[in-house]
Amino acid sequence: MQFYDKKQTLHFKNVSFVSGFTLAGPKEKQGKLGSTFDLTLEDDKFGEKTFEKAERKMFEYAVSGAIAKANLQPNDIDTIIGGDLLNQIVSVSFAAKKFKSSFLGLYNACGTYVESLIIGSFLTEFFNKNVLCVSGSHFSTAERQYRYPLELGVLRSPVTQWTATGVGASILQRHSDGCPKIVSATIGRVVDFGIMDVNNMGAAMAPAAKDTFTQYFIDTGKKPSDFDMIATGDLGKLGKEILIDLMEREGYDFNNNYIDCGAELFYEKQKTYMGGSGAACSALVTNGWLYNNLKKGNIKNLLLVGTGALMSPTTSFQGESIPAIAHLVEIEMGQKES
Amino acid sequence: MQFYDKKQTLHFKNVSFVSGFTLAGPKEKQGKLGSTFDLTLEDDKFGEKTFEKAERKMFEYAVSGAIAKANLQPNDIDTIIGGDLLNQIVSVSFAAKKFKSSFLGLYNACGTYVESLIIGSFLTEFFNKNVLCVSGSHFSTAERQYRYPLELGVLRSPVTQWTATGVGASILQRHSDGCPKIVSATIGRVVDFGIMDVNNMGAAMAPAAKDTFTQYFIDTGKKPSDFDMIATGDLGKLGKEILIDLMEREGYDFNNNYIDCGAELFYEKQKTYMGGSGAACSALVTNGWLYNNLKKGNIKNLLLVGTGALMSPTTSFQGESIPAIAHLVEIEMGQKES
Repeated sequence: MQFYDKKQTLHFKNVSFVSGFTLAGPKEKQGKLGSTFDLTLEDDKFGEKTFEKAERKMFEYAVSGAIAKANLQPNDIDTIIGGDLLNQIVSVSFAAKKFKSSFLGLYNACGTYVESLIIGSFLTEFFNKNVLCVSGSHFSTAERQYRYPLELGVLRSPVTQWTATGVGASILQRHSDGCPKIVSATIGRVVDFGIMDVNNMGAAMAPAAKDTFTQYFIDTGKKPSDFDMIATGDLGKLGKEILIDLMEREGYDFNNNYIDCGAELFYEKQKTYMGGSGAACSALVTNGWLYNNLKKGNIKNLLLVGTGALMSPTTSFQGESIPAIAHLVEIEMGQKES
Repeated sequence: MQFYDKKQTLHFKNVSFVSGFTLAGPKEKQGKLGSTFDLTLEDDKFGEKTFEKAERKMFEYAVSGAIAKANLQPNDIDTIIGGDLLNQIVSVSFAAKKFKSSFLGLYNACGTYVESLIIGSFLTEFFNKNVLCVSGSHFSTAERQYRYPLELGVLRSPVTQWTATGVGASILQRHSDGCPKIVSATIGRVVDFGIMDVNNMGAAMAPAAKDTFTQYFIDTGKKPSDFDMIATGDLGKLGKEILIDLMEREGYDFNNNYIDCGAELFYEKQKTYMGGSGAACSALVTNGWLYNNLKKGNIKNLLLVGTGALMSPTTSFQGESIPAIAHLVEIEMGQKES
C-alpha cells in the first residue's frame, strides 16, 4: 500500500465539457462507431501530398470544427492543449500556428488526450479560461515512423493493435449548464512491468491503468459499481482482459460496466486484431459516442483512463522494456438536457 | 493590436521555487558558467553504452539531486513534470519510472522548461502539491537525431548553436520563506515567420519571444526597466540581437538588462558559434546562475522566457518553415536570505 498512502486525486467544481468534435479516417468510418463521428475522410491523404501533411490538416479541421460546434469564434479559445504521436508532436504544433490561442504541447503517447483534459481543467477551473484539448493520430504516419514503411507489406502480429486515424477535440469552459463536467482527475505514474514486445502494448499498459484506477478508488472511497461506465483508452482486447484480471486481484470488479475505446472502434472483420490504438483512440470515442451518451443522460458518470506506452523505436533497438502511463478523469452529467 | 486585446497573463500567490539543481556535460563545465553547476560529467557517456542511456541517467541523477538538495525524500514529490528533445521524450519518461511520483510529459522543444514551471505552478498554487519540473538535452543524442551522425564530421554553419548537454531540475512548493516565487506566467502562441534554415533557429524563435513579451507587458502595464533581469532561453547571439530589434519596434528597450541563456553558456573560443541551445539551456542557467543570484538578492525580479523551435526533421524534409513558441514566467525574490 506504500504507493497509495498519499491522496493524488484532484477535484474540480467548475469545468464544463461543452463540446466534443471528432474527425475520423475511412477505416474508422466503417467501424462500429462510424456513425458517431462529425466528419469522416474518404481518403486518408485528405488531398495532401504526404500523410504527415494530411494529419496536420486533420488537426486544423478538428480544432475549427470543435470551435464552430460550440458556437464560439476562434478568438474565444484562450489556449489549445494537446499532442500527437509524431516526433516533436509536429501535427498539433503546426496546426496551432493557424490559431491565435496560446499553446501547450504535451506528450504522453496515447494517454495525451486525458492529460490534455487534466491540464485544461486547471486553466478553466482556476483562471476561467476557454480551453481546447486535442489529440490525434494517423495510421500511415505512425506505421512508417514507429514500425515499417507501408510499402514493405510486413505481416502483423496477432497481438497488434491498429493505430486509429482521427482527431478528437474537446472544449472546456466554466458555468455551462446541461453539459458534462470534469469533476476529478488522477495523474498517473510511469509503470514498467518489463514487457519487451512492441507489438503487445496492451500488456505493457494494463499495469499502469491498474495503478491509476487503484489510486483513484483508494483516494475517493468509490468503487467500480458507482459508475455507469468505466473506459480505458487503448488497451485493446488483450490488454482489457489483463486489466480485468489485475483489478480483480486488487478487489475491484470490472466485469460489468467496463469498456476499452480501442476494443470498441472496429469490427472483427476489419482485421485490426486486438482493436484500435493511437492518440486518436480515446479522443474519438470520448468526443463522439461517450460524449453523446453523457449529454443524453444515458451515462450519468464516467471514469475515463487514457493509457500511453512511452517507448520509442530507439529505446526498443537499445534493448529497453516498455514503460507506460495512465491518466484518469471523472466526468459527470448533472442533469439531462431539457 | 488584435492579438493582445485579451489578457493572457496568469498570476500566482503561493508558488515558491525552493530548489534548483543542475547537472552539466564536460563542455558546459568548461564554459562561462561552469562553476555554477551542482554536478558535472567528465565523459558525456556517463558510463553508459549509448548517449541515449547517458541522457536518461542524467535525468535520473538530476531528479534525485534536486530532491536531496531541497532536503526532501523522493516520496515527498507528488508530480514530476518535464520533457526533453528525444523522440517520444524517452529520457524523462524512462527516468520517471524510477520514482513513485506521478508524471506529466511535455514537449515544446527548448521552451519545455518554462512550460513545466507554468504547469507545475498550477499544481502547487491550487492543490498544494510538491512538484519537480525538469528539462534537459544531450549534444550527441540531439545531433544524431536532428542532424547528422557525429562520425560524419559535417561542417557546422556559422549561425548554428550548440545543443547543451545537461539537465536542470526545479522544485516548487507552497509557503517557503526566503525562496524566489513564481508570481506570474504567460503561455505563448505558435508563431511562424517563414524561416526555413534549420541552422538558424534564433531567427525562427525571436518573433515568438517578441509576441509573448509584448503580451505580458500589455497585460501587466509593466516595462523592461521594471526588472533586474530579463532572460530568454536559447535565442543565441544572433537571435538575441534580432529580439532587441523587434522589441525596440514595439517600443520596449531591451538594451540594458537583457541576457540570453544560450549566449551566456560558452566562451567564444569553444566554437559554439551563436552559443548554446537545447532543452537544457534555460534549465541549466536558471537553476544555477540565475537561481543563485535570486537567492542572494542580487536579482530581485526576473522575466524568464523559454523559447522553442517546433519543427522536426520530417517537416523540414517536406519543405516546411519553422514554427516557434515562447513561454514566460515572472520570478520574484521577496526578501534576502537572512
